[in-house]
Amino acid sequence: MPAPTLADIEAAATRIAPWIHRTPILTCRGLDALTGGTLFFKCENFQKVGAFKMRGASNAVAQLDSAARKRGVATHSSGNHGAALALAARNHGIKAWIVMPESAPAVKKQAVAGYGAEIRYCKPTLTARDVLLKEVVAETGATVIHPYDNDHIIAGAGTASLELLEEIPELDLVITPIGGGGLISGTSIAVKSVSSKTKVIGVEPANADDARQSLEAGKIVPAKEPRSIADGLLAQLSERTFAIIRKNVDQIVGVSEEEILKATRLVAERMKILVEPSAAVTLAAILAGKVDMKGRRAGLILSGGNLDLKLLSQNTT
Amino acid sequence: MPAPTLADIEAAATRIAPWIHRTPILTCRGLDALTGGTLFFKCENFQKVGAFKMRGASNAVAQLDSAARKRGVATHSSGNHGAALALAARNHGIKAWIVMPESAPAVKKQAVAGYGAEIRYCKPTLTARDVLLKEVVAETGATVIHPYDNDHIIAGAGTASLELLEEIPELDLVITPIGGGGLISGTSIAVKSVSSKTKVIGVEPANADDARQSLEAGKIVPAKEPRSIADGLLAQLSERTFAIIRKNVDQIVGVSEEEILKATRLVAERMKILVEPSAAVTLAAILAGKVDMKGRRAGLILSGGNLDLKLLSQNTT
Repeated sequence: MPAPTLADIEAAATRIAPWIHRTPILTCRGLDALTGGTLFFKCENFQKVGAFKMRGASNAVAQLDSAARKRGVATHSSGNHGAALALAARNHGIKAWIVMPESAPAVKKQAVAGYGAEIRYCKPTLTARDVLLKEVVAETGATVIHPYDNDHIIAGAGTASLELLEEIPELDLVITPIGGGGLISGTSIAVKSVSSKTKVIGVEPANADDARQSLEAGKIVPAKEPRSIADGLLAQLSERTFAIIRKNVDQIVGVSEEEILKATRLVAERMKILVEPSAAVTLAAILAGKVDMKGRRAGLILSGGNLDLKLLSQNTT
Repeated sequence: MPAPTLADIEAAATRIAPWIHRTPILTCRGLDALTGGTLFFKCENFQKVGAFKMRGASNAVAQLDSAARKRGVATHSSGNHGAALALAARNHGIKAWIVMPESAPAVKKQAVAGYGAEIRYCKPTLTARDVLLKEVVAETGATVIHPYDNDHIIAGAGTASLELLEEIPELDLVITPIGGGGLISGTSIAVKSVSSKTKVIGVEPANADDARQSLEAGKIVPAKEPRSIADGLLAQLSERTFAIIRKNVDQIVGVSEEEILKATRLVAERMKILVEPSAAVTLAAILAGKVDMKGRRAGLILSGGNLDLKLLSQNTT
C-alpha cells in the first residue's frame, strides 16, 4: 500500500492548525553537557490532551465526510489516543465512543469522559476489546479510527517533525519513541523528505522490543507479554507501519526500565517539565550511551506528558 | 531611602540580558476554565538555576567595581539565592562564599558547589549564620550580597515583570509570592510605573504571614516560628522592602499548606511543568477563592522550579 507522503503531512499541518498547539522546542545546557551533543526537545507533552496523539486524531476526524460525521467515530484505547479522539470529535461536533478496559486508571476514564465521549467498558483482554468495538460499530455505524494503523493518523503525527525541522535545520538525528509505529512512521517520512541526511532512530523498551525483532526477522514479530512503565509503547507494529519503518528508520534501540525511569526524572529535575516514560525513552537511549551524541545535533520528540506523579519519587522496581 | 526606579529596572534588564533566559509566558485553558479568568504564567522556573533569583544576583555582581571583584562576594542562603550568586560570580570570573546550614539538603549543597562557590557550613541558627558570614567577610573582604535587602537585587527581580508587561499588556492583576519582599518590591515598582491601573497582589503562607501582619500593624512584625513547604517564603521583610510594599502593594493574601500543595500538583498535572511550592502560592490564592478572577486577566510570577519531587505524590501532612 502507498504510504503517506510529505504532501500529505503538509496538508495535515494546515488542516489541524486550528485545533492543536504549535509546541515549543526547548534546549537544556545541563543535558547537553551530560551527553556531549546538542539536544532539541520537541515538547508534545505541552500539546492538547498532553500528547502528540491530538495531531493524528484531529487530522483523521477533519476528513470524515458528512454522512460519516453524522454517525461519529470509535476506537479502543486506554491512553492518549482515546482522549485525543474524544476531543477531536467534540471540536467537530460529532459523537465518539471509546472502548476502554474496566481496569483503566480513573484519571484516564475521567479525561475521556470530560471531553464528552461515551466510554464502553470491556474486560482487559484483546479479544474482549475487539469484540466490543465491533459491537459498538454495528450498533452506531461509527467510523473506527485506529490509533496508528491509519494513514491520516500517521500524516498527523508527522506534523510535529515538520515544525521541528522548520525551526531547527541541520539535525544529525531525530529520535522518537516506537510503539505501534505511528509516530515514527510520520516522523521518518517528514524527516527523510525534508532532510535526507538526517538519521531517524526509534527507541522502545527492551521489555517490549518487538520493533527491533521484527526488523531483524524481516517480518512482524509479536512482543511476548510486553510490560513496561512506558505504557504507551506496548502496541505492536502493523503491516502499514512496519513497511514505512523498514524503508526509513536507521536504527532501533532498546532501553531498560531503570534507564527509562532515570530519564523521566532527569527531565523533570533539569528541565522542570513533565514527560511520560514513553517520551523519556528518547533521552534514555542517549544517556545509556546507546546513541552516540558527541558533537551531534539531535531532535527528540517528547511525545507526551501524562504520567502518574508517583513515578517521580518511587524506587525503581 | 530612595527605592529603585523603573529606570533602574530597565538598566538592570540590559545589564543582565547576556546572563539570563528571557523566560516564556504560558497559558492553560483548563486552569482558565477552573478560575473564570485568564492567567498568564511567567515561568521563572525555567530561569537559570531554576529561579528568578538569577536576575537579581546577576545585576548585583555586574555592578561591583574592579577592587570588589578581586575580593569576591558572599551571602548566606540554603536556597536559590545561594545558587544564583554562585553562578553569577562564576559568570564574571570572581569568587563566591556561601554560608549554608549543615542541615541543608544534599542537592542544594551540590548545586552551589557545582557552580564553583566555596561553601562554609554553620549550625542551623540565625545567630550562627550571621556570625559565620561576618567571619568570612573579615577573612576575605568579600562584598555581602543580601538575598533581598539590596536595591540591585530588587531591580533585578523587577525585570521579570518588565518582560511580562511587554508581552501581555492590560493585565488587571500581577500576583507574586512574598517572602523577604525582594520579588514583590521589584515587581510592584515595574508594574505601577508601566501600568498604573494594574493591581499588585502578594501571596504568603498563612503559616508565615508576617507581611500581612506588618502591613496591618504599620511596622515590621516578625513571623513567629514560620514553617511552610513554601520554604522560599520564610524570610521576613526588611525596612527597605517594607517601605516599597506599603506604597505599592494592593493586597496581601495568605494560603494554607494544603492549598499550596494542591496548587503545586495542579500545575504539574495540567501544565506539565514543575514549580516549587513557593511559586505555586500565586495560583493557590486564586483557587482558594481569595483573589477574584471572574473576567479578569492576571499575570502570575512562577518564581522557581526547585522542589523535592516527593512532594508531588506525598499525602498532605
